[in-house]
Amino acid sequence: MKIAILFGANSFEHEISVVSAIALKKVLKSELIYIFCDYSRDFYLIPTDKITAKRFSSGEYKKDKKLDLKKDGFFQKNFMGEKKIEFDFLLNVIHGKDGEDGTIPALLNFFNIKYIGPRVEASVISFNKLLTKLYAKEFGVKTLEYQTLQRGEERVLSLKYPVIIKPTRLGSSIGISIVKSQYELDYALDVAFEFDSQVLIEPFIEGIKEYNLAGCKSDKYIFSIIEEPQKEEFLDFDKKYLDFSRTKRVNEAQISEDMVKKIENSFKKLYEPLFAGSLIRCDFFVLNDEVYINEINPVPGSLANYLFDDFDKTIKDLSNHLPLTIAVPHLYRYIDKINSAKGK
Amino acid sequence: MKIAILFGANSFEHEISVVSAIALKKVLKSELIYIFCDYSRDFYLIPTDKITAKRFSSGEYKKDKKLDLKKDGFFQKNFMGEKKIEFDFLLNVIHGKDGEDGTIPALLNFFNIKYIGPRVEASVISFNKLLTKLYAKEFGVKTLEYQTLQRGEERVLSLKYPVIIKPTRLGSSIGISIVKSQYELDYALDVAFEFDSQVLIEPFIEGIKEYNLAGCKSDKYIFSIIEEPQKEEFLDFDKKYLDFSRTKRVNEAQISEDMVKKIENSFKKLYEPLFAGSLIRCDFFVLNDEVYINEINPVPGSLANYLFDDFDKTIKDLSNHLPLTIAVPHLYRYIDKINSAKGK
Repeated sequence: MKIAILFGANSFEHEISVVSAIALKKVLKSELIYIFCDYSRDFYLIPTDKITAKRFSSGEYKKDKKLDLKKDGFFQKNFMGEKKIEFDFLLNVIHGKDGEDGTIPALLNFFNIKYIGPRVEASVISFNKLLTKLYAKEFGVKTLEYQTLQRGEERVLSLKYPVIIKPTRLGSSIGISIVKSQYELDYALDVAFEFDSQVLIEPFIEGIKEYNLAGCKSDKYIFSIIEEPQKEEFLDFDKKYLDFSRTKRVNEAQISEDMVKKIENSFKKLYEPLFAGSLIRCDFFVLNDEVYINEINPVPGSLANYLFDDFDKTIKDLSNHLPLTIAVPHLYRYIDKINSAKGK
Repeated sequence: MKIAILFGANSFEHEISVVSAIALKKVLKSELIYIFCDYSRDFYLIPTDKITAKRFSSGEYKKDKKLDLKKDGFFQKNFMGEKKIEFDFLLNVIHGKDGEDGTIPALLNFFNIKYIGPRVEASVISFNKLLTKLYAKEFGVKTLEYQTLQRGEERVLSLKYPVIIKPTRLGSSIGISIVKSQYELDYALDVAFEFDSQVLIEPFIEGIKEYNLAGCKSDKYIFSIIEEPQKEEFLDFDKKYLDFSRTKRVNEAQISEDMVKKIENSFKKLYEPLFAGSLIRCDFFVLNDEVYINEINPVPGSLANYLFDDFDKTIKDLSNHLPLTIAVPHLYRYIDKINSAKGK
């Protein structure tokens, strides 16, 4: 079996994607085909035995074979014309912009490439933290209270300090601040508005329990262990960056069977049918024994491999249960009717 | 000025798009470049003087020049290699799947093509009628009450008859039924579930007033007239199909100045900032002097040209105010830091 790993792209989280992609080499047992999308959105075929972070930062990858994304696959030009890069399915390992905002899924759908990863709508809903909240509430999963502010709008807070301020549409803690008083508010908003025209503001609850659960659905749900992530106040980008290269199993959260079930049930309410075909990680809060969704990571760092008992098998199972798109009949029913009425 | 018209695609509304595209020939004064995406998602350059509906239904278009969508544009192969199709900007005139579900916008963004039309997130929110409701409520625009049903879920109605049943994700009245009693429910749900795994159910309010307003924002809002659409119970696909070829001005709704302002204000709440770069048509209900959003049409039939005083100027103004994407710096900050720490 050959698995293509698509990574990089025009994203603030480009480097995280590079690290995620390299991490997967250690945990997937199949032959891997590495397809790199550079910041300029050119595609390259990177030799699997030569993949190092430095190959990208140095620009050395530009000597690798360039690929064209077209109908039915990625193609490499050669003296005969072109050759299709063969693989059984592709893993979308692009974080943030392009990968998680719906762009890459749209390309893969349109060009008829079989892939694991959230589809366009699922990406948009999970990439936008406000939409995540609206969606979760609609399907019976609690979220913390919040307010939004638009860039240029008057900066009036309806929540009590401390609050956490996030750009509505980024991941990996970029642009996020904890604000403890009015004094710090303006700067935190300026930072967040650098990345998005809208910010989301939530209460920052000291000592709130956080639990991460990854999973997917093949013919049945496959859940990871539940992790209680290490954190200081919260992981900033530098710390998360190092975190993304993880390939070692972490410790399971010490919670009751009952709480495990509650968290898994919340995951299911969010997952189906929207996230069919993808392996996602949901980050939950628990407060007074109630489960709240914090974030849905549609393309989690290194695909959360370190949370699974058998990540390789999980991916293969999922690849056999990818969603079908509704077939559109290739018909000209109305035009034919009109033409025949006109006697044409 | 050259304007490209992108139309067709793998959509239940493919034919409507063909008709919309042809209609635009009569109302746009610039040179038009017609780019057809067929049901199989191959692109063709259609000679503007030869564009007729029959060219597509007969398959004759396959003799036209095939195009490749790549970085920076559409390209035509020739004996020298390839030639870029030149235009100033593109109009997305693909209705339904591909065009309104975020796919085409994602492609155009990714391949760096300047276009008028909703961006990915705006497309997903307006294509999905449930998300439209959640979004509208969040930003202070009323919607009718509703319930959703998933395919396979028990068919229990919480609303009173009559109700209107819609697939959550299609446009152009496809799969929509009015259900007056329990007796008709199953069949209507079966029809809707053919097109989507989720349906949206709303009260059907006899004689409710419906008003359509199209518009966009350049340096200021440009609004169309407000139309009170002709309807029997509601327009079905056959009637709407004919409707899409309209290029003649319609009659303005006879409503008070105050109601015009109310409707325009509701439009503004929905439009900005999400729909920047697009010309949309919002279909409102008015009940007891209150405005409710029914649907947002991100790519309205024939771009609602027949509602505008000067459609050609509107499009040109809008083309000068397309949204910029946030620039991502092409940096390897973390990888460089680690490499330098390692002395590499």
